Amino acid sequence: MNISSALDFIRVILSHTSHPGNIGATARAMKTMGLSHLYLVNPRHFPHEEATARAANAVDVLQRAIICDSLDKALDNTVFSAAITARSRELSHKVFDARQGAKELLHYANQQQPVALLFGRENSGLTSEEVSKCQIIIQIPANPEYPSLNLANAVQIMTYELRMGLAEKSTQKDDNDILASFNDVEAFYAHLEKLMVASEFLDPEKPKLLMQRIRRLFARARLEKEEIQILRGILSALGKRW
Amino acid sequence: MNISSALDFIRVILSHTSHPGNIGATARAMKTMGLSHLYLVNPRHFPHEEATARAANAVDVLQRAIICDSLDKALDNTVFSAAITARSRELSHKVFDARQGAKELLHYANQQQPVALLFGRENSGLTSEEVSKCQIIIQIPANPEYPSLNLANAVQIMTYELRMGLAEKSTQKDDNDILASFNDVEAFYAHLEKLMVASEFLDPEKPKLLMQRIRRLFARARLEKEEIQILRGILSALGKRW
Repeated sequence: MNISSALDFIRVILSHTSHPGNIGATARAMKTMGLSHLYLVNPRHFPHEEATARAANAVDVLQRAIICDSLDKALDNTVFSAAITARSRELSHKVFDARQGAKELLHYANQQQPVALLFGRENSGLTSEEVSKCQIIIQIPANPEYPSLNLANAVQIMTYELRMGLAEKSTQKDDNDILASFNDVEAFYAHLEKLMVASEFLDPEKPKLLMQRIRRLFARARLEKEEIQILRGILSALGKRW
Repeated sequence: MNISSALDFIRVILSHTSHPGNIGATARAMKTMGLSHLYLVNPRHFPHEEATARAANAVDVLQRAIICDSLDKALDNTVFSAAITARSRELSHKVFDARQGAKELLHYANQQQPVALLFGRENSGLTSEEVSKCQIIIQIPANPEYPSLNLANAVQIMTYELRMGLAEKSTQKDDNDILASFNDVEAFYAHLEKLMVASEFLDPEKPKLLMQRIRRLFARARLEKEEIQILRGILSALGKRW
């Protein structure tokens, strides 16, 4: 596995970016580290001349950027994703620093399985719902008195750590686990939630906290393809009565 | 030694910056990692509203930035400095990557000795003369097809590595060597060059290459205070005949 092909399985997702300049700067940051797959979820302004200007010689990355009207579409077919966030969260996923988090992502990218890095809005970051669609949280170590990195600079640090991490030998066991795709996991959650509501275990008027706890649990587990099949089989079996 | 006090001995020097936005973005990058000492050598536009805008909540770093009309003034009283450069150079100093280079700088900063990171022009980088005033070169690992990081993003990676490096235990021996200051070393070079010209060893019409080789030699050595005294003593002794 050479460097470029592993990095080809890593996508950068920007959610609801306000300033087009940050999109261009992100494209440049990605290309300097050898990444090229940029996904934009509902950018406020794109394409935009400021994005093009800040991209410098990375306009090719901008031109191939994929614009999505939902995060689910941007995560399509990924097996693993990391939410980059500065704040700690109540119902937090497992938290890694930038270096450790990059290694987690590379573990799957090295097996040619698509993974994603998710970055939120410039001012308010990611919503809890967005975080809940990822498997881990990555916090970039920063000055606690002013941890507010520019969006493209956060992308620069993460893509730098990905490039650095590639050079190192993986210390993890080579378990070649085939992870379930985002789509399969979401279908499982939907299936489960439907049954929870049907069985009146879950009040659909106040669904969020409970589903988030469940998502957190399975995020830690990093479900494999076969495991999803088993879980879905169980739900289908149990669901016959609902 | 706590984190903030070690980082207080590290200055970031930007030489001949063209775009004031990059100065502001640099201030922000520094502050997010806990650094605050910014030196500007002949910036094209500063102060400037674009610098202020890009600095976000790091305007305090901008306001305390020290503007210098020469690199020597910016390096005043430092004992060790690193030139950040993307190109390899013919008469190169020892080259470190960003992580190793940060550790070299921290080695001295942890002893409360002032050190500097030197960044060059947006388009053309550092001149050979500027590099020759530093002890080491740092190259940030990057995509060989497009290694052109934005200036503030390069600052972000280096200051991130400094912060990360602080958290790690130093693996170097605790030798508490008291390094010679920049001023002492430059005075030594000037003294030596004067004698080299006087003795017709050096042709003042073509001085550059020879002095660069000498600087490279002593850069590797990382001269200590006492060693400079000895060298100056030798020059003074020999110079009586010139």
